[in-house]
Amino acid sequence: MTCFVLYSFQSQKKMFKGLLSVFLALVAVTSIMAKSEKTAVKQEKRVPQTLSRGWGDQLIWAQTYEEALFWARSRNKPLMVIFHLDDCPHSQALKKAFAKDKEIQRLADEHFILLNLVYETTDKHLFPDGQYVPRILFVDPSMTVRADISGPYSNRKYAYEPSDMKLLRNNMERAKTFLKTEL
Amino acid sequence: MTCFVLYSFQSQKKMFKGLLSVFLALVAVTSIMAKSEKTAVKQEKRVPQTLSRGWGDQLIWAQTYEEALFWARSRNKPLMVIFHLDDCPHSQALKKAFAKDKEIQRLADEHFILLNLVYETTDKHLFPDGQYVPRILFVDPSMTVRADISGPYSNRKYAYEPSDMKLLRNNMERAKTFLKTEL
Repeated sequence: MTCFVLYSFQSQKKMFKGLLSVFLALVAVTSIMAKSEKTAVKQEKRVPQTLSRGWGDQLIWAQTYEEALFWARSRNKPLMVIFHLDDCPHSQALKKAFAKDKEIQRLADEHFILLNLVYETTDKHLFPDGQYVPRILFVDPSMTVRADISGPYSNRKYAYEPSDMKLLRNNMERAKTFLKTEL
Repeated sequence: MTCFVLYSFQSQKKMFKGLLSVFLALVAVTSIMAKSEKTAVKQEKRVPQTLSRGWGDQLIWAQTYEEALFWARSRNKPLMVIFHLDDCPHSQALKKAFAKDKEIQRLADEHFILLNLVYETTDKHLFPDGQYVPRILFVDPSMTVRADISGPYSNRKYAYEPSDMKLLRNNMERAKTFLKTEL
């Protein structure tokens, strides 16, 4: 999965971002190395990993896509799948906006089955225009991926920025209206 | 997935267990109902769900089978997959024994990619003799499910009881010896 980089950036900004990415990658590598050193020394206290990964600790998250689909079907709720990466600044920024938006958190809690993933699934319907992050897809309880519900960027249709929370809320409302299917 | 019930139980014990299961199921249903009621009232503090689910908070857990296979291959470590259910007393008993066994926790931490699942995957190699719980399967870094590494029960080959921790430790040692494959 590649980290979504805004195409509207000026080239200078892009270069800075590029350098920043290299720097962040170095920091990440260094911290991973530091971590494995610590692991070798042993017994540092690790913070237990959460299923929410910071997207809403008070929400109930499915662990896997299979589990999420099962709950979507059996509870007749739409599924919201968030693809992200810990070392992607765009994912981190979106996560922060998502977690602090009370209306989004309420809608998510009451009306959605929730899944956040740092790895792709094998279902190609979940990447209609590529495997970038961050990316949010909705799945109807009829098991249909709602490719019609997209964000504001034509080149990465399912990406959102922190400034797009209003559109995301509207899209969540749209996902609550189920498709009329034969199922 | 069905919860593993020991076939060696006397029928009286079985009946008690049966009644206990019904009771536990009722408790579970009641607590789920209580939970949804609370959800309706809102804003009770939920404890964030962990990826470990109590099998070792200090261990690093993969979220999905795809992720776990990726790590097993790229880090050249065997994968240990634990299938369990929160409302299965046998799963709970095994979890307790697993989490408090220091040698198992050390082996798991140092030599294995770890995954615990409450839902089945689509890979039929992960249920060579059925989809019961608890059930532990090892996968070689060559991506081969080690159906040869099993527990002491012939009717449910990949089940373990709390009294089988020594065998489980030995099996973990066996899984550390990789298959000689063409890969």
